[in-house]
Amino acid sequence: MKNVKYLKCVKCGNTYDATADATTCECGGILDVIYDYEYIKTIFNKDVLKNREDQTMWRYRELLPIEENTTPAGLRVGNSPIYDVDKVAKKLGIKKLYIKDDGINPTSSLKDRASAMAVTKAIEAGYSTIACSSTGNAASSLAGNAAAAGLNTYIFVPERAPKGKIAQLMMFGANLTAVKGTYEETFELSKAAIDKYGWYNRNAAINPYLSEGKKTVSLEIIEQLDFNAPDYVAISVGDGCTIAGVYKGLYDMYSVGLIDKIPRLISVQASGCCPINVAAKNKTNNWTPQEENTYADSIAVGVPRNPDKAINAILDSNGITVNVTDDEIRAAQRFLAKECGVFGEPAGVTATAGLIKLCEEGLIENDATVVSVVTGNGLKDIESAIANCPSPVYSKNDLSEFENEFKKLGITVQ
Amino acid sequence: MKNVKYLKCVKCGNTYDATADATTCECGGILDVIYDYEYIKTIFNKDVLKNREDQTMWRYRELLPIEENTTPAGLRVGNSPIYDVDKVAKKLGIKKLYIKDDGINPTSSLKDRASAMAVTKAIEAGYSTIACSSTGNAASSLAGNAAAAGLNTYIFVPERAPKGKIAQLMMFGANLTAVKGTYEETFELSKAAIDKYGWYNRNAAINPYLSEGKKTVSLEIIEQLDFNAPDYVAISVGDGCTIAGVYKGLYDMYSVGLIDKIPRLISVQASGCCPINVAAKNKTNNWTPQEENTYADSIAVGVPRNPDKAINAILDSNGITVNVTDDEIRAAQRFLAKECGVFGEPAGVTATAGLIKLCEEGLIENDATVVSVVTGNGLKDIESAIANCPSPVYSKNDLSEFENEFKKLGITVQ
Repeated sequence: MKNVKYLKCVKCGNTYDATADATTCECGGILDVIYDYEYIKTIFNKDVLKNREDQTMWRYRELLPIEENTTPAGLRVGNSPIYDVDKVAKKLGIKKLYIKDDGINPTSSLKDRASAMAVTKAIEAGYSTIACSSTGNAASSLAGNAAAAGLNTYIFVPERAPKGKIAQLMMFGANLTAVKGTYEETFELSKAAIDKYGWYNRNAAINPYLSEGKKTVSLEIIEQLDFNAPDYVAISVGDGCTIAGVYKGLYDMYSVGLIDKIPRLISVQASGCCPINVAAKNKTNNWTPQEENTYADSIAVGVPRNPDKAINAILDSNGITVNVTDDEIRAAQRFLAKECGVFGEPAGVTATAGLIKLCEEGLIENDATVVSVVTGNGLKDIESAIANCPSPVYSKNDLSEFENEFKKLGITVQ
Repeated sequence: MKNVKYLKCVKCGNTYDATADATTCECGGILDVIYDYEYIKTIFNKDVLKNREDQTMWRYRELLPIEENTTPAGLRVGNSPIYDVDKVAKKLGIKKLYIKDDGINPTSSLKDRASAMAVTKAIEAGYSTIACSSTGNAASSLAGNAAAAGLNTYIFVPERAPKGKIAQLMMFGANLTAVKGTYEETFELSKAAIDKYGWYNRNAAINPYLSEGKKTVSLEIIEQLDFNAPDYVAISVGDGCTIAGVYKGLYDMYSVGLIDKIPRLISVQASGCCPINVAAKNKTNNWTPQEENTYADSIAVGVPRNPDKAINAILDSNGITVNVTDDEIRAAQRFLAKECGVFGEPAGVTATAGLIKLCEEGLIENDATVVSVVTGNGLKDIESAIANCPSPVYSKNDLSEFENEFKKLGITVQ
């Protein structure tokens, strides 16, 4: 890979060759992919992008850690829509708001970006089986992308994962284990099995390439905004890998000179489970484990596995942390769907919940441009969506009954 | 609209001006949009498409019935992936198979194509409220697209609609009525209310523009295959509107000279509810109502509202009809997910179920190229997906227990 210099530990600074099946540093720290931006600038610019036919996440391949002759594997990932929602920006009292709907990916979450990278690197490295633990979305995206690529999967989810995610996994033919325990125990069982059987490791906090897949969401945002960096990018945070990827993409675009500043990240966690935000707010990498008290299952991570990259991302971008209650998440889910036509899962709308809260508290400038990322589709967790909705009106095929039923709700049909 | 000549009744041949809120013919027949292909050929060709930045369904606007100065409204619809699945083609004994995954649309079904058209035409016509009846997907896509466009909606679904679809509708802020009765009674109540209140009518069998939205799936297929017409396009059939749209898009592409033949349609219905296929097989437009005996709710339509366009589409393309059992649909759902990484809802995978059946019966030539359209995302109906899957393995964080649980299933972890 001419565009990659080496892998570097975010804890101790040790460097390693960028082999396709690299994992963590000897010290336990996670590795970061270090690019040769001077070289990349000679082969990558706005004109190159403009003339590129590939509309997937791989259109940014000069900024991605794959070999020049590698054919990307998996499903068609990326190019998710970004909606300019002026009406909502006005309600929130900011200049511009864009909603990036990453639930529109093949398995309906942002995690497809990491999983397409994982199967591509696994094939590069010559593996035929790939494994991960996940609160759900990483798992279903791995299962789907691996099925498309013809790889076997062993997947570990906590027993509490919503049925929709489990059904997706089983459909895709994964060897699925529902672990009776916390997310931490789920992660540990996956690690033990991977160590024993030598499968390719798609755990995002182990594999240095996965946040490089996730970062394509930021590369897209910048291109979709015609290389005008927004002031803020809001993102929900669980394990820490996604916000790390979001930052890396912005850093890349800045480093190759395609934007003139790095947006400030808005890191949103659930009040009931916010170890990364607590540490970042105290400007320290020393975080403390927490219980997992939120219904937003995809970000219910009390022992984050990628705290270093996440906290660095928040601090390096001069970011803002904000925590939201489950009720604030529920309100944001209804708000986004009704105002924008974007139906996100609880963790998927948490970024917007945090943004709404910051705006209400007057902490975002009136002239700010903000991008809020929706990370997963609301259909992923129908049970909590149903609990968050009023019941429909029930009526026979009878116009009077229909009108009366709405009248009971205080609605005059007109 | 310079590209549209007029609307023409498919039953009696009467013609009408193409007003934005046109509905059916005086005789009750549905209207077809008649284009001026000679004019369109002067402004639309491969080069125009190649240089077009718009990647949505509106990139084909020369072939769409909207005014030249209209800004399309609603969500970002279209540009769904088409997968070249050689491995599966080989298993089925055909030359080439493409899976077009239209579940990757903003509200996760092909119906978004019609609903984006509906809200665009409603705004053209000056309406602020839009209504429809639907087995589910048309409704949720209308609710989502209308929310994005700022229109009010009244929506009527049969009481049996899956909870996921109902939750989507309520989230999007629709005024939703669950009708205690069949799809036919649902349709009739919606018609009575629309007549009384004068809302814009998004019933696909009433509104002549909706199949024009749906046809963009075919326009995309043809462009994605680089203007090489496949031999067959397989599609699931309920109300009849979707197959009518699929045919219209192919007919358009043929009429403007961008393909040299019209593919044969494979019309797939559920054995328990197949009135259109029965009529088409007998080469007649006289169809007989049937009961709605299939779990594939989106195509459980015993009294189809668009039989004429659908039957004409099958006959005019020298099409094939095939009916499949619910078990064959379930098998196709698992097969598509496992082999291709595409997870479709029951009605969404019915086309593929029919194709598999035809291939097993030796009715498709070995050298055939086939496109099979998946019309909706499997997450739309999680309950039936769960019922169609084995249970995962349950294990504590313990490697021996994990291995033993798989051993019980006859799987040696390796």
